[in-house]
Amino acid sequence: MKIITISREFGSGGRELGKRLADILGFDYYDREIITAIAEKKGLDENYVENALENHLWQTVPLTYHHSFATPILVHTPPTELIAEQTSILERIAKSGKDCIIVGRNADFLLRKQKPLNLFVCAEMEEKIKRCMDRAEDEHLTYKQIKQKIKRIDRNRAKTRNIISGSKWGHRATYHLIVNTTDWSIKELAPAIAEYANRFFEKNK
Amino acid sequence: MKIITISREFGSGGRELGKRLADILGFDYYDREIITAIAEKKGLDENYVENALENHLWQTVPLTYHHSFATPILVHTPPTELIAEQTSILERIAKSGKDCIIVGRNADFLLRKQKPLNLFVCAEMEEKIKRCMDRAEDEHLTYKQIKQKIKRIDRNRAKTRNIISGSKWGHRATYHLIVNTTDWSIKELAPAIAEYANRFFEKNK
Repeated sequence: MKIITISREFGSGGRELGKRLADILGFDYYDREIITAIAEKKGLDENYVENALENHLWQTVPLTYHHSFATPILVHTPPTELIAEQTSILERIAKSGKDCIIVGRNADFLLRKQKPLNLFVCAEMEEKIKRCMDRAEDEHLTYKQIKQKIKRIDRNRAKTRNIISGSKWGHRATYHLIVNTTDWSIKELAPAIAEYANRFFEKNK
Repeated sequence: MKIITISREFGSGGRELGKRLADILGFDYYDREIITAIAEKKGLDENYVENALENHLWQTVPLTYHHSFATPILVHTPPTELIAEQTSILERIAKSGKDCIIVGRNADFLLRKQKPLNLFVCAEMEEKIKRCMDRAEDEHLTYKQIKQKIKRIDRNRAKTRNIISGSKWGHRATYHLIVNTTDWSIKELAPAIAEYANRFFEKNK
């Protein structure tokens, strides 16, 4: 079974690269699906689950329950439960035996026994801001707000990573390949990374 | 004109990767040749030139003159002159217009106007130690001595880099691609990186 994990700076195009690799290689693709599965299992709002997993241990997040945007209520499910559920879902994916790509969720660390190919995707700040500005979910934000959002999310990702794994987020020693997408169209880049992935799995057979 | 620069952790196989890429792509290859050219121009010993360029600004190096190992004498050529000569040689290589691969020498920074493809090569410490132990030049060293040598050289490379460029040695933001050679034979890895390089230059045409 072949697993590719993609860790990434927010706005670097890691998700698009993951999708394109899945298309080229014929792998299953998991990203948002994992959040959805956790939210369903725990009866929580998806956005809450996502925020709790990205920011746990260093900030509190207002909770909306099942997409209701009434008065935010205090959460009673501790992030450790969500993390355990996330790990259990990742393990089920691994047990399914189907080749797949998993974006985010520290899957490189949580599935380390399966010896995945671990990619990290980054880009220059200006490109990341531009990519975010083109997204529906961020188009209401100003340039400065997007920049702050990118920095905040990546700071939290780095913290989460370092706490759960002891290995450094975004550091060369943690991944097989770090891809800087600056000046690339992801469409042009993806086949080269797919070629690398094929050789990676070929040597590990 | 296409230029690939390779920065690397000591013992990571960056040099071998560079040579193999040069073979596959039909590029010229520069590594030790640059040190030799500086040494000849300045009438200095090659090892001295190499040490001075890798360690300048934070330690003094005993000087041997034209391979004579008599009493070490004090050097009168300041490293700044050597750095200037190195830059001038790199610029001459760039002006030649021939596609090439340059290993080390901060060529990614010094030739940044030529918009090279900048690779960084790293590996796990155990693999680097093993690779060094197989080399004639290091086979007289103990495991511990090799480990110390690797750490010392990389610390100096990082310092040099940060002082001359302001960008971080070994950090993802500084390079297009960071390749971790752990568990790879460089022979199997090189064609995948060559494929990436071809696409990189294709998009920049």
